[in-house]
Amino acid sequence: MISVEEARARILAALAATPAETVPLPAGWGRVLAQPVQARLDQPPADVSAMDGYAVRAAEAVAGASLAVIGTAPAGHPFPGEVGPGEAVRIFTGGFVPPGADAILLQEDAEASPGRVQVQETVRPGRWIRRRGLDFAAGEAVLPTGRRLTARDIGLAAAANVPWLAVHRAPRIGILATGDEIALPGDPIPPGGIVSSNAHALAALIRAGGGDPLVLPIAPDDSQAIAAAATAARACDLLVTTGGASVGDHDLVQSALGPQGFTLDFWKIAMRPGKPLIWGRLGATPVLGLPGNPVSALVCSVLFLLPALERLSGLPGAPPRTIRALAGAPLPENDRRFDHLRARLEPGPEGVPVATPFPVQDSSMMKTLARADALILRAPGAAALPEGASIEVIPLGDLGI
Amino acid sequence: MISVEEARARILAALAATPAETVPLPAGWGRVLAQPVQARLDQPPADVSAMDGYAVRAAEAVAGASLAVIGTAPAGHPFPGEVGPGEAVRIFTGGFVPPGADAILLQEDAEASPGRVQVQETVRPGRWIRRRGLDFAAGEAVLPTGRRLTARDIGLAAAANVPWLAVHRAPRIGILATGDEIALPGDPIPPGGIVSSNAHALAALIRAGGGDPLVLPIAPDDSQAIAAAATAARACDLLVTTGGASVGDHDLVQSALGPQGFTLDFWKIAMRPGKPLIWGRLGATPVLGLPGNPVSALVCSVLFLLPALERLSGLPGAPPRTIRALAGAPLPENDRRFDHLRARLEPGPEGVPVATPFPVQDSSMMKTLARADALILRAPGAAALPEGASIEVIPLGDLGI
Repeated sequence: MISVEEARARILAALAATPAETVPLPAGWGRVLAQPVQARLDQPPADVSAMDGYAVRAAEAVAGASLAVIGTAPAGHPFPGEVGPGEAVRIFTGGFVPPGADAILLQEDAEASPGRVQVQETVRPGRWIRRRGLDFAAGEAVLPTGRRLTARDIGLAAAANVPWLAVHRAPRIGILATGDEIALPGDPIPPGGIVSSNAHALAALIRAGGGDPLVLPIAPDDSQAIAAAATAARACDLLVTTGGASVGDHDLVQSALGPQGFTLDFWKIAMRPGKPLIWGRLGATPVLGLPGNPVSALVCSVLFLLPALERLSGLPGAPPRTIRALAGAPLPENDRRFDHLRARLEPGPEGVPVATPFPVQDSSMMKTLARADALILRAPGAAALPEGASIEVIPLGDLGI
Repeated sequence: MISVEEARARILAALAATPAETVPLPAGWGRVLAQPVQARLDQPPADVSAMDGYAVRAAEAVAGASLAVIGTAPAGHPFPGEVGPGEAVRIFTGGFVPPGADAILLQEDAEASPGRVQVQETVRPGRWIRRRGLDFAAGEAVLPTGRRLTARDIGLAAAANVPWLAVHRAPRIGILATGDEIALPGDPIPPGGIVSSNAHALAALIRAGGGDPLVLPIAPDDSQAIAAAATAARACDLLVTTGGASVGDHDLVQSALGPQGFTLDFWKIAMRPGKPLIWGRLGATPVLGLPGNPVSALVCSVLFLLPALERLSGLPGAPPRTIRALAGAPLPENDRRFDHLRARLEPGPEGVPVATPFPVQDSSMMKTLARADALILRAPGAAALPEGASIEVIPLGDLGI
């Protein structure tokens, strides 16, 4: 058995970012840049006013002075002339500061009369002027390669006058649920069978992680059917299987996939829930074999599939984000397997949440997993902790997972 | 001027959830349930084994006993007979416990020989059996109305044998950028003009919030063009405009939309960045008029548009989630406007992050906003705080915003 950290490191080491594609700006949201976004213009494109007021010559705009208003400069409509001695131009936020002017007289510091304005407060040179290029300059890389684009980034790229983006292709993830006994919801359930919940939970998780899920038809526990479905997944960046990963099944998957060029890296991880996990490669396609148990499959996906999706998407691929919490109940000493306790999160003192494990942690209970707000991390051999101890948890749900 | 809280309350009070639609299970991810999901079966569907081993009669399975193995019960393939006196059935995790058996002998506590098994450890009645309905029972509401569905919830609904879901329709949000001076990225920029960044940043934010954005062509500052575009948006659940909300423009939007049936609720909020904000109704369609300044537009969207999207999606519509942080720099006393300082978040002591405001908070700087990890909340009249003080921040980026 290998550790969770080693398993994740081996998975990440075997994966590379998908190649780049060109997408229109709006399709870039949530994708990872494969090339930097370089500004195509200065922003602001000229010296502009930060306020509504008058563009003036600072040397003249002293309290009590009266200036001739020779025109207006609203945003988008520059004044076509120059501000000469004794003159001012009515200006609005974002309006270009006309040549000759070097300061803004605020409208609340001015007294307007027809064709003229009287200065009530002496202005300071340069005051209330946003300099050309204050936000960014043409040629500047405003967004670096490797960044996952937020809504704000899309706005920044637009402001930089960039209509197309080079981003990593969304990773295409094949999902293969195996088992004679499983049926899709609403389909006839074979005698002794259960409804398959893994494929569509995983598809949603893959979407949440920025991937493009491809749900393959359920493969019966039969070498040929598994091999055929696996072949269909060769166009994928990663094939995820569920079921067929435990002790007895291990040979089945090996014997089914072996002739197709499957090579196994490891298959047992010192963790709970979710010990049996296959990692290998089918020809060129990496294969992640998750347990058939839905709770185990989802916990393993949070720990391994989401980081794998990040790596395929163009990011380094980090362990799931954790936060500090206070234990809402005493925690027993842990054995040698890394444990992930399904827990409720509630607001606690000083902004630190309280994480309380559900009393029954049976790995067959999907309802408990769905109601959990977090997974409490219990490292191998972790000592018993009293209620209120500081613990580390993976918050769930933040990303729709 | 009204407060941020009052503005949000008035916006939420004017909105109602969209009507329900039926979607296939995989399309339910991220949507809000309009009807509960009721389990259509018991889970597990029968008493099943929690481990690999032997289904036995507990009274006989004492250390040293030898039992005849009369068949196997792997998951999905129930043993067709009964376990009689002196008998055992080989069973695997998830296999149905055959009639007659009332306990599981773990495989590591057993010594197998051809056709027989010897008990090494006395079993306890009921041990390692998951009872029928342990996770949920047929008829039970496993997911309530009003829940936004996670990947785990999709798995739970699948396990409950529910292939279709009744969810609130994704809110359709029209986006209308106004202004003579703006052009889309890559389009010719008029003299003195700037590139429009609001429409596509907002479209991404709306997608992040679960909405369905409809980007309308840019409307010049001209009553007729604004009115025509607004008419085109009547099929929307909400129309968002940008620009045309500041002092002088206020009359333009009013005069353009007034004849179309526009009624104004309020338009000035005591906040920074983003004071001018229009809230009203165009016929039956609510209208949120954001400032034209992209930083103000995005901050206002976090504070008002995301909660509005939640309400339209079927949730109550809460203020943006905040976390506690430590001030990374001294904060000056605040004036009467609620301030939202763009800040960097870094890991801090005891898991509490440190939020450091950027030194320049100019509301024209998109690059600063894009690089911010959080907005520091500074309530009206907030006292000056030293470095290290406990503050409240809105984390950005978590949801792709």
